[in-house]
Amino acid sequence: MITKPTLLIDEARAKANIQKMLAKAQRNDIQLRPHFKTHQSLAVGRWFKEAGIERITVSSLSMAAYFSAEWEDITVAFPVNILEIDTINELAAKIQLNLLLESVEAASFLVQHCKSEVGIFIQIDVGYHRTGVAPENDAKLTAILEVLAASDQLQFKGILAHAGHTYDCRSKTDILDRHHHALISMSMLKAKLQKKYPDCIASLGDTPSCSVSDDFSGVDEIRPGNFVYYDLTQHQIGSNTLDEIAVAMACPIVALHPDRNEMIIYGGGVHFSKDRLVDDEYGVIYGRVVAPKAHSWGAIIPEVYLKKISQEHGTVAVPAAQMKNYKIGDVIMILPVHSCMAVDLMRHGEMLVSAHPDMYRDNQQINR
Amino acid sequence: MITKPTLLIDEARAKANIQKMLAKAQRNDIQLRPHFKTHQSLAVGRWFKEAGIERITVSSLSMAAYFSAEWEDITVAFPVNILEIDTINELAAKIQLNLLLESVEAASFLVQHCKSEVGIFIQIDVGYHRTGVAPENDAKLTAILEVLAASDQLQFKGILAHAGHTYDCRSKTDILDRHHHALISMSMLKAKLQKKYPDCIASLGDTPSCSVSDDFSGVDEIRPGNFVYYDLTQHQIGSNTLDEIAVAMACPIVALHPDRNEMIIYGGGVHFSKDRLVDDEYGVIYGRVVAPKAHSWGAIIPEVYLKKISQEHGTVAVPAAQMKNYKIGDVIMILPVHSCMAVDLMRHGEMLVSAHPDMYRDNQQINR
Repeated sequence: MITKPTLLIDEARAKANIQKMLAKAQRNDIQLRPHFKTHQSLAVGRWFKEAGIERITVSSLSMAAYFSAEWEDITVAFPVNILEIDTINELAAKIQLNLLLESVEAASFLVQHCKSEVGIFIQIDVGYHRTGVAPENDAKLTAILEVLAASDQLQFKGILAHAGHTYDCRSKTDILDRHHHALISMSMLKAKLQKKYPDCIASLGDTPSCSVSDDFSGVDEIRPGNFVYYDLTQHQIGSNTLDEIAVAMACPIVALHPDRNEMIIYGGGVHFSKDRLVDDEYGVIYGRVVAPKAHSWGAIIPEVYLKKISQEHGTVAVPAAQMKNYKIGDVIMILPVHSCMAVDLMRHGEMLVSAHPDMYRDNQQINR
Repeated sequence: MITKPTLLIDEARAKANIQKMLAKAQRNDIQLRPHFKTHQSLAVGRWFKEAGIERITVSSLSMAAYFSAEWEDITVAFPVNILEIDTINELAAKIQLNLLLESVEAASFLVQHCKSEVGIFIQIDVGYHRTGVAPENDAKLTAILEVLAASDQLQFKGILAHAGHTYDCRSKTDILDRHHHALISMSMLKAKLQKKYPDCIASLGDTPSCSVSDDFSGVDEIRPGNFVYYDLTQHQIGSNTLDEIAVAMACPIVALHPDRNEMIIYGGGVHFSKDRLVDDEYGVIYGRVVAPKAHSWGAIIPEVYLKKISQEHGTVAVPAAQMKNYKIGDVIMILPVHSCMAVDLMRHGEMLVSAHPDMYRDNQQINR
């Protein structure tokens, strides 16, 4: 019985999302190396394993350490944090660990301190401008590669990029445009590097691009993560249908305020995160209320949405005509704006996985 | 040694903040019942106990259960979640538990299901319009009180309000204005209720009002929480000086991008939360970088601030002239926008408490 904010995972939907992305990778003859920062769960990771996935992506060395219990080939898609060299050496002794470099300084540090074989990707900035080396910056690329050449432990594997600027898109055309630009940058650079490094691969692939595109020319590997659950933000971008969203937060109603067309739920920023979405119709929202359904949830209820959140409270807009449908002590279900953040917050809270006809608990203990 | 995002707590500053608020309560001859949702830590709670505090406030029954290990008088300042009646009965059998009512429905439920004595506060809406009964709504107040009268277990203690609309203020005058209005509403209502309930008390007190006001006429108890740590948001509101902020996040630098006056840290939305502040000078920011100092931190560094965050990355603005001060592998310290949210996120991460000259770990295991 649900008595407090609980993250529900629809196992059937998540598995269908995995199958769909895997089928796309297979059609294009590329590797799917899914990003596990979205679910951060060994249990959910096994759904990928059952589908035949053997290599994964994570965004921190802590996460790599957690998943190393069951996974033997892990890429940490984050500029290497040299302060965690002890964790790097522990992991590298045990699994195929791949790290990301974008500076000569970090490369030199690894050359001096890595005790086991580590795979190295150089991160390329294909337009997001958060991290990475510009593809035209030959001098820096060459400098990093020269440093790496001095080491027997550091194995240059290829180039890797995250086209995170697709998250700013609001149409498939925009996503395809940015993805196409990224593809060209990466394949041109790969072709150039392959003259000296014939095994150099190119790794790309954020959830928006991988969801809407069918063209991955010149790329060897994709790393989407959010697609396993999707969410309202990805839906707004154009990555998924509402029926593909595989997580919802169940929250108890604690107060009704028909005088201002609002109800208050137990469920706030510590459950959903304070990530927001600017909806065309309602302005800033934090989630959409969906119809209840046994072991899962149904369609979005028009005009009922999470309009405001504080630490533990959520304020839900409810039109006058619908107020009669709700009472104190009911549990409502809400699609989150950003599933990665909500799932991260609920790691130590209540989570239920719905596998028709049973529900089971997924209690995760990964610490940061 | 700090190797990944770590929340630092300056014990001396936090203890000074506690002493200052306690002195104010004592000067005004009112009870300080601090809100523990900010720190959520038994260890930090002991600093309050050492100062002589015996009664506390929390925002969920899970938090009440956690603190019931060391505290015997706890108010859950959240409209009671009737689905957690089992937890209510367990706690009420063990400690003085005070709950919040704002509806006849929840009152009736408690009358039927409470097995031990529970203190009851009726929540009053003094202008925040999130929860609570309007002070002029005699009919609803009377209806709730009549329901309570039927029970031997439910003890009406008084009225309670949270003037959360002070958080929208940007000057002391504005805060004092809203606080004054709340004081009048509460003291008038209390006077009216005391005709029938002579022991009825009035509980008020958000951090902004309690920080800037010295007038608590007619109020018996205040419940500020954030004041133990404060943060940039409270500073912007006018509640505290920068020197009173008692938490900072230590984050490793993982990349430098002098071409765009930015550096990238390991530290993002899963550490700081996605709470934002609109700074007069810099627009939306997520934190301010402070100068390093042994066992604590120093002043804010002008023009260096956390301008963007994603799940694990933070992008820090650094003017060209200051870029030379930073290198990959350095740890920088950042004041958070909202300490309650950052502390909540770091409960299962890395936390260090600085008590000159030692630092010790505060690993908290409270689950939601």
